[in-house]
Amino acid sequence: PSSDAPRTVTLIPGDGIGPEISNSVQKIFEAANVPLDWESVDVTPVKSPDGKFRIPLRAIESVTKHRIGLKGPLATPVGKGHQSLNLALRKQFNLFANVRPCKTLEGFQTPYTNVDLVTIRENTEGEYSGIEHTIVPGVVQSIKLITEHASMRVCEYAFLYAKLHKREKVTVVHKANIMRLSDGLFLQSARNVAEKYPEIKFEEMYLDTVCLKMVQDPTQFDCLVMPNLYGDILSDLCAGLIGGLGLTPSGNIGENGAAIFEAVHGTAPDIAGHDKANPTALLLSAVMMLRHLNLTDKADRIEKACFATIKDGKVLTGDLGGKSKCSEYTAEICRRVKDSS
Amino acid sequence: PSSDAPRTVTLIPGDGIGPEISNSVQKIFEAANVPLDWESVDVTPVKSPDGKFRIPLRAIESVTKHRIGLKGPLATPVGKGHQSLNLALRKQFNLFANVRPCKTLEGFQTPYTNVDLVTIRENTEGEYSGIEHTIVPGVVQSIKLITEHASMRVCEYAFLYAKLHKREKVTVVHKANIMRLSDGLFLQSARNVAEKYPEIKFEEMYLDTVCLKMVQDPTQFDCLVMPNLYGDILSDLCAGLIGGLGLTPSGNIGENGAAIFEAVHGTAPDIAGHDKANPTALLLSAVMMLRHLNLTDKADRIEKACFATIKDGKVLTGDLGGKSKCSEYTAEICRRVKDSS
Ligand SMILES: CC(C)[C@H](C(=O)O)[C@@H](O)C(=O)O
Ligand SMILES: CC(C)[C@H](C(=O)O)[C@@H](O)C(=O)O
Repeated sequence: PSSDAPRTVTLIPGDGIGPEISNSVQKIFEAANVPLDWESVDVTPVKSPDGKFRIPLRAIESVTKHRIGLKGPLATPVGKGHQSLNLALRKQFNLFANVRPCKTLEGFQTPYTNVDLVTIRENTEGEYSGIEHTIVPGVVQSIKLITEHASMRVCEYAFLYAKLHKREKVTVVHKANIMRLSDGLFLQSARNVAEKYPEIKFEEMYLDTVCLKMVQDPTQFDCLVMPNLYGDILSDLCAGLIGGLGLTPSGNIGENGAAIFEAVHGTAPDIAGHDKANPTALLLSAVMMLRHLNLTDKADRIEKACFATIKDGKVLTGDLGGKSKCSEYTAEICRRVKDSS
Repeated sequence: PSSDAPRTVTLIPGDGIGPEISNSVQKIFEAANVPLDWESVDVTPVKSPDGKFRIPLRAIESVTKHRIGLKGPLATPVGKGHQSLNLALRKQFNLFANVRPCKTLEGFQTPYTNVDLVTIRENTEGEYSGIEHTIVPGVVQSIKLITEHASMRVCEYAFLYAKLHKREKVTVVHKANIMRLSDGLFLQSARNVAEKYPEIKFEEMYLDTVCLKMVQDPTQFDCLVMPNLYGDILSDLCAGLIGGLGLTPSGNIGENGAAIFEAVHGTAPDIAGHDKANPTALLLSAVMMLRHLNLTDKADRIEKACFATIKDGKVLTGDLGGKSKCSEYTAEICRRVKDSS
């Protein structure tokens, strides 16, 4: 295909409010004339001949082919033996770094202002290894697995990200005072990478201390890199500082530019289908996707239109303090996108 | 000994500012006529004949005999093979529950008001098992160990604490969606105990969700019970909400009433010996100790005097926003204690 032909990306609308907010993102992309085609797939697991539930082949093939996906919220199927689909996707495509920027949204009031930080989380191992045993009844061990390979990979990514995004500091978050070998290996990896980036400030901090300082003054942080579970915790904490998971984007980055961007909030089944959902987190994830694809101008235009709509405050969904429908909020962003062209 | 004879408790002044703030607590106890004697011991490890460093026998004997201790901050000796002394003490005396109340201090400004919660942390196992292996170079596993015994014990304690302290709700904090067996066992233990306390509300929440909600509105929480590492993280986060580790007490509770209460802030070597330290965290830990010993009136009087001094705002140490010395702040609390008798 010629390089001018629109590139195709996989869309996983997801469950609950997923289809509505995906639709909203598609409309806004249309308004901005984003040169991308969508291939929509369903990832609801289907029963294989061996009795196990698996992500449908068509979904896997689509992401494998296009290497870029946008994903709405997924419901975790109930019952034992069902692994979280979110985790399954991260594993399936070896998406090793989870990137979650947290930036204060002007006009949306919280006790914190000027927050502008990014958590970068190892996304494939650590406490999420899935290796657990009941040794004798009532005695369980879970294995936290830390490898130099995965630690170096995510730390390299963090410093590269910091450089490309003109960030000044990377903080490695750890508990190497307690897990001397495992977190020690992660810490040492961060130190090794830091040496190659003398122009970026490097800081080491215990996870508990980071949490304490984060709620006292988040503006002291910039980029943070850390093992899997710590990223799960810190990214939610930081999302809380600026308004919650309805406002924060997320990207799962793999090798050779493969990536899935996702809204990490829930499926909100109570309001699904009522045109009440807030598409902001998915939209801002889509903006991250555009930047990842070097469609920077489109990214900037859409982001500005979204931020301006929130700042203006007249057309907002319920969770943002307004009374408008999802479709009205979407139309307002589309209008601003078009005005800016 | 007759039950009127003063009971003796072990005092571990600790390092850095430890001796100053311990002295401050002793003075305030004197002003309040607290019927306790102190036995002061040093826990700096000494080299045993086998070449290992161990806590001095005298210290162990003192705590073993009196079963109650108050502890200032300890410096962790540098060099490999030195385990954190804090952890060594928790293990040595099997102090299975770590209790950290966090209550807004009137007069001390933070973005949060009316915080009044308690984190109760399993204190002997989990991610702190100390079991780690390098499997091959660059591949490390750390073992998180969860037992039914320790989980039940700390959950029982949490509900008992909630009952005795007239608290309404216990939230169990977990990641059983990821660590299904280990956190699953902890969660199940909490459920089992909860059934025996129908009068106390019981809630289950993922750690990441707790962090997010905590920074958005901490007043929705009451008692929280959780595995070791999660408690380390959450207790620091909560301390940050009300003003930091200089203001928050901590108690390590063992079997049959044994307990060590401690200030969990650092040794502040930069200001040690300059009469600038803030003794509040150690004092409030000592107040917890008094309550634990059923010396409730003395506890109330000292706590009130401390809170009133902070609210009044005229005689405060530097970190509390004032210009007074540690000795002046101490004298002010003593004065108020005496006035209230
Ligand atoms: C849904 C859950 C498995 C997931 C996680 O724990 O990683 C979520 O909390 C997240 O942060 O993406
Ligand atoms: C000093 C350190 C070992 C300790 C811990 O990690 O438990 C501290 O952070 C605490 O919370 O008491």
